[in-house]
Amino acid sequence: MSKRHLLFLVSGVVALLVLSTTAFAQEVTPLAEQLFRYHRGQDIFFMFMLVAFLMLFIKRYEWGVCLMTMLIISVAFPFYFAVQTIYFGNAWNMDLIILGVVCAITLVISAGMFLGQVKTWQYIIIGLLFVIAYSINEWFLFTYLEGVADMGGSLLVHAFAAYFGYGMILSLRHKKIMDAPMKVTVHSVSFVWLASMLLWMLWPSFTTALLAPDQVIGGMLATYMALMASTVITYLVLLAIHKKIDPLVYTYAILAGGVAIGSTVDLVGPWAAFAIGLLAGIVSSLCFVYLHPTLEKVLGVRDVMGVHNLHGVPGILGALFAIPFAGAIQVTAAVGTFVIAIVTGLVAGLIMRAFGRNEEYILDDAESFSMEDARGTESVSIGESGISV
Amino acid sequence: MSKRHLLFLVSGVVALLVLSTTAFAQEVTPLAEQLFRYHRGQDIFFMFMLVAFLMLFIKRYEWGVCLMTMLIISVAFPFYFAVQTIYFGNAWNMDLIILGVVCAITLVISAGMFLGQVKTWQYIIIGLLFVIAYSINEWFLFTYLEGVADMGGSLLVHAFAAYFGYGMILSLRHKKIMDAPMKVTVHSVSFVWLASMLLWMLWPSFTTALLAPDQVIGGMLATYMALMASTVITYLVLLAIHKKIDPLVYTYAILAGGVAIGSTVDLVGPWAAFAIGLLAGIVSSLCFVYLHPTLEKVLGVRDVMGVHNLHGVPGILGALFAIPFAGAIQVTAAVGTFVIAIVTGLVAGLIMRAFGRNEEYILDDAESFSMEDARGTESVSIGESGISV
Amino acid sequence: MSKRHLLFLVSGVVALLVLSTTAFAQEVTPLAEQLFRYHRGQDIFFMFMLVAFLMLFIKRYEWGVCLMTMLIISVAFPFYFAVQTIYFGNAWNMDLIILGVVCAITLVISAGMFLGQVKTWQYIIIGLLFVIAYSINEWFLFTYLEGVADMGGSLLVHAFAAYFGYGMILSLRHKKIMDAPMKVTVHSVSFVWLASMLLWMLWPSFTTALLAPDQVIGGMLATYMALMASTVITYLVLLAIHKKIDPLVYTYAILAGGVAIGSTVDLVGPWAAFAIGLLAGIVSSLCFVYLHPTLEKVLGVRDVMGVHNLHGVPGILGALFAIPFAGAIQVTAAVGTFVIAIVTGLVAGLIMRAFGRNEEYILDDAESFSMEDARGTESVSIGESGISV
Repeated sequence: MSKRHLLFLVSGVVALLVLSTTAFAQEVTPLAEQLFRYHRGQDIFFMFMLVAFLMLFIKRYEWGVCLMTMLIISVAFPFYFAVQTIYFGNAWNMDLIILGVVCAITLVISAGMFLGQVKTWQYIIIGLLFVIAYSINEWFLFTYLEGVADMGGSLLVHAFAAYFGYGMILSLRHKKIMDAPMKVTVHSVSFVWLASMLLWMLWPSFTTALLAPDQVIGGMLATYMALMASTVITYLVLLAIHKKIDPLVYTYAILAGGVAIGSTVDLVGPWAAFAIGLLAGIVSSLCFVYLHPTLEKVLGVRDVMGVHNLHGVPGILGALFAIPFAGAIQVTAAVGTFVIAIVTGLVAGLIMRAFGRNEEYILDDAESFSMEDARGTESVSIGESGISV
Repeated sequence: MSKRHLLFLVSGVVALLVLSTTAFAQEVTPLAEQLFRYHRGQDIFFMFMLVAFLMLFIKRYEWGVCLMTMLIISVAFPFYFAVQTIYFGNAWNMDLIILGVVCAITLVISAGMFLGQVKTWQYIIIGLLFVIAYSINEWFLFTYLEGVADMGGSLLVHAFAAYFGYGMILSLRHKKIMDAPMKVTVHSVSFVWLASMLLWMLWPSFTTALLAPDQVIGGMLATYMALMASTVITYLVLLAIHKKIDPLVYTYAILAGGVAIGSTVDLVGPWAAFAIGLLAGIVSSLCFVYLHPTLEKVLGVRDVMGVHNLHGVPGILGALFAIPFAGAIQVTAAVGTFVIAIVTGLVAGLIMRAFGRNEEYILDDAESFSMEDARGTESVSIGESGISV
Repeated sequence: MSKRHLLFLVSGVVALLVLSTTAFAQEVTPLAEQLFRYHRGQDIFFMFMLVAFLMLFIKRYEWGVCLMTMLIISVAFPFYFAVQTIYFGNAWNMDLIILGVVCAITLVISAGMFLGQVKTWQYIIIGLLFVIAYSINEWFLFTYLEGVADMGGSLLVHAFAAYFGYGMILSLRHKKIMDAPMKVTVHSVSFVWLASMLLWMLWPSFTTALLAPDQVIGGMLATYMALMASTVITYLVLLAIHKKIDPLVYTYAILAGGVAIGSTVDLVGPWAAFAIGLLAGIVSSLCFVYLHPTLEKVLGVRDVMGVHNLHGVPGILGALFAIPFAGAIQVTAAVGTFVIAIVTGLVAGLIMRAFGRNEEYILDDAESFSMEDARGTESVSIGESGISV
């Protein structure tokens, strides 16, 4: 080999090295990708906890909501994990941890609808039933159907939560439930503000949890833009209708942009996302003000937290926003989710009814907790044992 | 080519490979750098929300503060984003998302000064005006001037927030404002503790948000050391002056180290940072106790949250701490920020005055919210529609 | 060299390149590893703050707990940092930041035991004494002994915190302490729920903080599984014993799985972790209900927060769960930690006693804060100076 050949060879090798390093420099290794998902996944556990605090406004039921939430994650996650690894034989990894907590968060959203209509221990059974129902819909959306756009869970999470819940309350409905009084306190509502604002801030970790690394920043921007739009427009809509803001509508409806961007988070730019958020905010506000009381009266049910207004309608809407990208399959996916959710919810509700409804329909921590004196007087002495009362 | 040449060539290539891998192994790819910034950027959104809760102590104005905060981010961020991408023609990326939320957090800090002195809907207009004022100062600091040290925002964020706010309250001043009573409750103040402690913990993500990857850990350490110093010294200063601690001074002044380290976060070691925090804590405490009442009396204005004591003076101080590293340009930068902030604040205040001041100067959620009964009795029944009152 | 040789050489180089890139693609660079630890480390600062809110339930002592917490981190961290860098001559890096906050969190857990039994300013001295005691145990576990399994801190943090605290309360014991009344309010307990649920969610960042990158996801899964198990089983155990749930036992005991998984977090699979969590939850619940009042009566001490029930017994238990992996050294490590902790705690307690006990044993913010009027009436006017009262 001549010197020229040698030079050629060496420069080729150097070029290869530089190229490979450059190409590589724009990527993230599989292990790093998993570790970034660790943090976005943990954010979803954070959001899971905050959903409880979004429901904390009912006086005398603050602790019951928290207890129910902790039972749900602790039953639904391990059962979902077992179904996936043992029944379906999948290996576990970070993605499965994320899928598990997403399943659990869907149930805790749904539970906001039938809160107080079942007994606390029944959430353990509901956790098991829900995982089966949810897995059917997950299979329908991503295995049976092909090409459904729903990376951020408009259908998988929000619409399914709302209509499973609707199935439950239709099965559990009872005249007495409309008479149950609900009271709020100032600081309970401050907890709701805290939860709503932190959920808002964490939302991009939810919608981008399973996106490819190079889609994550765009997904974050789209999600925040959608949330900002629904936050401004909700204020204007509520101001236009009532002159004043109902804090328990506002803290919920500002999240509608996050719900509706779920199906298009990886597909639209920032201003399209803003437009989606505007529409979602308007629709969600109007649902709270007009649709909610009408539906409750007509169907004789109580959607305690207004889940249908934030997750149901904006969830379906979000799926339809993806039609320009994914085609008519979005309609099939939305209709299918609606049907699977409401049927499995009805069945689960009938099973819970067989176990005995919570006939009192009283949202009262006295049902579950030993510290009832504290609830009456707002203050109680702690006895001999130091912590117990 | 002889075998010796071949061996030489091969070993050279292997050496190159090893070298390139080793060099590379100490780096972070551009995409990974963006994804790390995703998390530090989200922490700033977290801090943005917590600034609202730092202001939550005023009884009967808890929800109004939250509403104002959400309107600010939802107006200021998209407008800043539009100015940068459409007007200046910049491409968007993670850095721009961070710059956008930093702009919004500057306004929400500033709003702590004139809280209750404007009407809620006026924050939408203030959001637009502020972005323009802030962009002028941003241009002044980092485009017009060269070599200003302010990676952690002592000037860009803290000093600008304080003096823009001062301009506003000078324009809005009115005798009646000094008579407005402010009441606090125990749990409102507990929310302030929560906010202060979480802001403290998140602060390194703010000061290191845009640092190069290999500067981030050092920046985190410097920030925590500065915060720890101001936390201890504030306790000792307040104890020495009053024998007891005013919780609403303490929860603010402990953050002074974080404010003052902003200009030198990437330039000093841990113990120099500790010293900066000590000085900042002393100065901020003394401003709360002595300067604050004097300034309010002399100028006839009310700085509702004491923004000047935490962000104004320690912000300017922080810029001056960087003189040994960046030279006299720090003085130019500090003076320029002071002038731009106070002038634009005065103008913005006059414009808001033209829209009509909040003549009542009453910090009262009843202005904005439909749930006023709850505020009087601390408890209210929820009506037919489930969630609305 | 022939063309065949050349081809052979080039293909060898290409193969090397591909191999190195592939091998590399599964790894994380040292800098990226540090930046991932930045976030898990910051989560531990987050947990540190939440430990304060876990103790917030005592009416009239909410703010004192927060003040004490902030003093502890601000004294213990810099002193630990100084001991490590100046005395031992170690260089600082992200790992040292993590070790520093882990030291501080151990003290704040311990302080839950002797809360109200020392004066607020004494926490500054306790902070210094504790760092020395903790450093002795750290040296014993990881330098003197070899091969101890405790990556998640069952011994280093939890058991040490509990028995150092026990030493303190044995030294500080006084008849009067059993008479001190403790009152709670509804929203104080809601803060405890918030703290417990967020600690639960953040726990994997604590147990995996110093794991190798490829062990982190497995550690996260093991930690969550252990926590889920203790959450469900605690509910069932408390329900079986009392029919109702004591919220201040439940919010603590659900964390027992996280305490007990500390020594085996990198060694067990998800279902073994679940089993560890089940056992830890049962043991912790039974300690709260039966062991706690007995021990307090026999020894004449008050463990204010029940630290022994959550951290002491489950911490020792966690160390023993690692015997199948690490052998009998776990017993030596557990016994040694118990002895070092209780002896140094006794000594620290005697020193604090020499400085003067808090003879009143009243958990009352009026001791520290100037806003005492607010505590009586739950509402107070703010005076001339704007923020001060």
